[in-house]
Amino acid sequence: MAILFEQVTAVTMDPTQPILHNAYVAVEGNSISYVGTQPPQGTFTRTISGAGKVLMPGLVNAHTHLPMTLMRGYGGGCDLQHWLNDYIFPAEDKLDSRSVKAGTMLALAELIASGTTCVADMYYFCDDIAQCVDTAGINANLSRSLVCFQEQDPTQMESWKEMEALYEKWNGYDHGRILVDASVHAEYTSFACPALWETLGNWAVNHHCNMQVHISETQSEHEDCIHRHGKTPIALFDQYGLWQTGGVAAHCVYVSEEDMDLMAQRGITAVHNPMSNLKLASGIARVPSLLKHGVNVALGTDGVASNNSHDMFEEIKLAATLHKGVTRDPMAVSAHEALSMATVNGAAALKRNTGMIAEGKQADLILVDFTAPALTPCHDVEENLAFSSNGSHVQLTMAMGQILYENGQFLTIDLEQVQHKLKDYALPHIFQK
Amino acid sequence: MAILFEQVTAVTMDPTQPILHNAYVAVEGNSISYVGTQPPQGTFTRTISGAGKVLMPGLVNAHTHLPMTLMRGYGGGCDLQHWLNDYIFPAEDKLDSRSVKAGTMLALAELIASGTTCVADMYYFCDDIAQCVDTAGINANLSRSLVCFQEQDPTQMESWKEMEALYEKWNGYDHGRILVDASVHAEYTSFACPALWETLGNWAVNHHCNMQVHISETQSEHEDCIHRHGKTPIALFDQYGLWQTGGVAAHCVYVSEEDMDLMAQRGITAVHNPMSNLKLASGIARVPSLLKHGVNVALGTDGVASNNSHDMFEEIKLAATLHKGVTRDPMAVSAHEALSMATVNGAAALKRNTGMIAEGKQADLILVDFTAPALTPCHDVEENLAFSSNGSHVQLTMAMGQILYENGQFLTIDLEQVQHKLKDYALPHIFQK
Repeated sequence: MAILFEQVTAVTMDPTQPILHNAYVAVEGNSISYVGTQPPQGTFTRTISGAGKVLMPGLVNAHTHLPMTLMRGYGGGCDLQHWLNDYIFPAEDKLDSRSVKAGTMLALAELIASGTTCVADMYYFCDDIAQCVDTAGINANLSRSLVCFQEQDPTQMESWKEMEALYEKWNGYDHGRILVDASVHAEYTSFACPALWETLGNWAVNHHCNMQVHISETQSEHEDCIHRHGKTPIALFDQYGLWQTGGVAAHCVYVSEEDMDLMAQRGITAVHNPMSNLKLASGIARVPSLLKHGVNVALGTDGVASNNSHDMFEEIKLAATLHKGVTRDPMAVSAHEALSMATVNGAAALKRNTGMIAEGKQADLILVDFTAPALTPCHDVEENLAFSSNGSHVQLTMAMGQILYENGQFLTIDLEQVQHKLKDYALPHIFQK
Repeated sequence: MAILFEQVTAVTMDPTQPILHNAYVAVEGNSISYVGTQPPQGTFTRTISGAGKVLMPGLVNAHTHLPMTLMRGYGGGCDLQHWLNDYIFPAEDKLDSRSVKAGTMLALAELIASGTTCVADMYYFCDDIAQCVDTAGINANLSRSLVCFQEQDPTQMESWKEMEALYEKWNGYDHGRILVDASVHAEYTSFACPALWETLGNWAVNHHCNMQVHISETQSEHEDCIHRHGKTPIALFDQYGLWQTGGVAAHCVYVSEEDMDLMAQRGITAVHNPMSNLKLASGIARVPSLLKHGVNVALGTDGVASNNSHDMFEEIKLAATLHKGVTRDPMAVSAHEALSMATVNGAAALKRNTGMIAEGKQADLILVDFTAPALTPCHDVEENLAFSSNGSHVQLTMAMGQILYENGQFLTIDLEQVQHKLKDYALPHIFQK
């Protein structure tokens, strides 16, 4: 399968040729085979006109919890404790394989339709999630997030065994479309068992795995950790060797300047989830400081129970505006920086050869309709992408060379069937008494 | 023309019956003639099925500058002074009637497609803007915003005469679909001529007009005013009788607690423009305090040159999340409060009989598609409207009983012609040397 995009404006995120007008981008198999302003050699199965459209790398959502889409808006309006204890935890307690699959397929449909081609997930029921990812055709870094509330041999935990089975079955699947990451849920859900951190850090080294952890999302979480251990979560985990393969630190709202230096040294990515952090009243991560310290910053939606959307364009816009308002610096976090967070930086975070339109990169691409009134006129393509687009302006989503969504139609997901499974099983099973 | 919406979920914003399921809403002429869960009497020209959809009042955008849509994204990435002096002011200097009309029609298309049925505008070239509003079918409070840089008889200013002509020609037009408001641009663009404030305040009383003013948008504007007059802008204008008919105070980022008390007493609405205030690095208005003081708070996008979108759903979501994050209170500004700001509060701000689905209210209504993956599942309709919707989920927009937009088609605006006028005239005229 060879596909040619022609006459397109390409926002490449490649510093050597950032924006190309009237460009040609060719895809062969899983990869981008040509990028330029002259027509490429070769014959193509399909040619897609890009007139009036912008081609950019598919977006990387570097932190979410896919099945929690089932709980979109559930318990809204409560304070955090009531929301968790009276709504989210009881609902999660009733999850089963079928409902997780329904919720995950729904999440993937939403992500794909709004331009995300790669997602990092932390949850449980991971084999079910992997099956959905397989079907949907999206790229995913999946992790069985580990918690531990007592001192024990972590390798004897059921969840550890699930993680190992997940790794054996799915890591590297379909030319690396699915990767399995290691994950500690957080310090506050594992401090009884520091052996977990050390053992998992070594396991990640031996299995060449990335690491996903919730870090300093709330002030109390951050301060309780310092109180318990005399160290911040980032530094504590470093002491136990959790970051030997780098990793993805979700939230980082309260990380210190020293944490930022350590993150830059260790190659730890801060995943900024601006909307979730606002909605849960956690606070506002100091992204300009993270950037100044040389930390790789990626973007995530977090689970939509606390967002309540998987639209990465919302996170891009918020990342590019929130810090201007907070620091009162109109130059803080530019459109280009926010777009980088959602593309190249996300790819670096998840250790993937994507996030850029360049020869040899994975063909994860989206087409955005720039003829919509909301995207007219276009004085600056990156400004319009960052500040004027939303996920509904995405017309085509391609992952690894496969078109997953085009003109409102899903090509890998049977949306009607997903909606039936939700209505007939998942929602009654979980939410009705 | 009589239209019946049936089998719809109605988010009415009417406290006596806030949310109705399987509801019927009938429209006759300009008004809502029936709201209930039983089929109404009468025959209807058209019946619209609301299955899977939510009917809500059309959104009220209480502060924008329509023609500035021409400058969407122009000079992005600059600091404020360069943006204004090198980009916006030179572009505005080249505006003419034809380009203003092209930009305004584009703005109205974007507003209508994303669910806004009433808009408050402050600009010049107001007769051109009114002609566009007439064509498009939207409701609008138009104001010729006055500035004055020297002491003079304000009634002798050209702009004053334009305001009077605008009022004579357009105020009350088409059953009040167009209203003409009085407007002082701001204290910092009129302090040389306090007579303007007094004369205009009296003029508004005599003409039964609303008042639109930029208030305390930036810290320097607010503090310079105190330095010049020993009073805040709100209090200063009050001393000169500018608020005798109430009014709309756009931004209010730096208003004091005393200002808030005065605003509540005088019936002055604070128009919160959260995205513009972030993007221009102005700061964050203390909306929870405004609400606590009993101030009516409405929402606006501001001109899209500083947003860069006219999608009111973005403002609703930001208003309902930003203050949670800033105050670290997950109960700050609920979904319902943010929706109220964009509907009933906006209607009160602009002194219009709209913003609510109730018998006798103006038939300004929108249908939102709740079958989209992004709006599934729906545990709470208001939560999904506030946190999961964007303007692209709007399927139908009706103003004063007339359908302006349905399933992607504009019924009053020739979008192709608008795009031609932009491309062939407005953009080359303004932006090319």
